Amino acid sequence: MSLFPNAASKPDLERGETLAPRFDASGLIAAVAVDADRGEVLMLAWMNAEALALTLKTGQAHYYSRSRQALWKKGETSGQVQTVEEIRIDCDQDAVLLKVRVQGDGGACHVGFRSCFYRVVEDGRLVERPAP
Amino acid sequence: MSLFPNAASKPDLERGETLAPRFDASGLIAAVAVDADRGEVLMLAWMNAEALALTLKTGQAHYYSRSRQALWKKGETSGQVQTVEEIRIDCDQDAVLLKVRVQGDGGACHVGFRSCFYRVVEDGRLVERPAP
Repeated sequence: MSLFPNAASKPDLERGETLAPRFDASGLIAAVAVDADRGEVLMLAWMNAEALALTLKTGQAHYYSRSRQALWKKGETSGQVQTVEEIRIDCDQDAVLLKVRVQGDGGACHVGFRSCFYRVVEDGRLVERPAP
Repeated sequence: MSLFPNAASKPDLERGETLAPRFDASGLIAAVAVDADRGEVLMLAWMNAEALALTLKTGQAHYYSRSRQALWKKGETSGQVQTVEEIRIDCDQDAVLLKVRVQGDGGACHVGFRSCFYRVVEDGRLVERPAP
C-alpha cells in the first residue's frame, strides 16, 4: 500500500496542493532539519514513506537510517527529540525541510555539537568551527 | 582516479582534518545551499566527486543532475550563479552545506521562487508560502 500518491503532472508536482513526495530508487527522500529559532541547519537525514507519514502524524521527526536500515525516531535514545514546527517540500518534491525545536540538550549531532555541520572546508582541510 | 581519499577510521571521519566525503552507491553526496546573508535554505541538490572538486576549486557551486545524469554549473543558463562563501561537511561526511551568494535575480528555484522550499505542508495539503 502506498502512503502517498504520485503527482498527476509536472504542474501538479510543482504548483499543486497534493503532497506527492518522490522517493528515490531506495524509497528515500532527503530531509534537512533547521533549528526553528536560530535558523541553523542542524542535520541532513533520510526518510522513507513511513518516516515521513509518522513525522506528519506525530509532529516529531522520524527518519530512516541507511546504515542500520531501520526507521528511527530522533531522540529516542539521546533525548534530542525534534518537535516539528513546519514542514516544507521543494519544487520537485524530492526533499523536505523541517523547522524543529530540539528537546534534551538542544543538539542534533551524535558527536556532541549542536549541528552536524561543525566543520568548515578550508584550503582542502577540515577545521572545526561550530556556529556560536 | 579518485578525487578524494577515504577516511582511515571513524575518529578520522568525524574529527579529522581530512576531507573524505562518502559518496553513495550512485557516487553522489547531498548538498544543501543556504543564502549566506538571509540564512534561508535555498535548495537541496546532489554532487558527484567532480562537482564537489569543481566547487572547491572555482568557488562557484557545481552540482550533478540525477535526471539529466550530468554535471552542471548552477546559473550557467539562468544567471543564478552561486558564489560559495563557505563549505561545511557533516559528522559522517555524507552531506555538504554551502553558504552562497546568489547572482542574477537572487533566486535559486527554476519555478521562480527564491527558495525551492516555497510550499508548507498543512493538514496534508501543500500551501505556497515563500519566505518574505
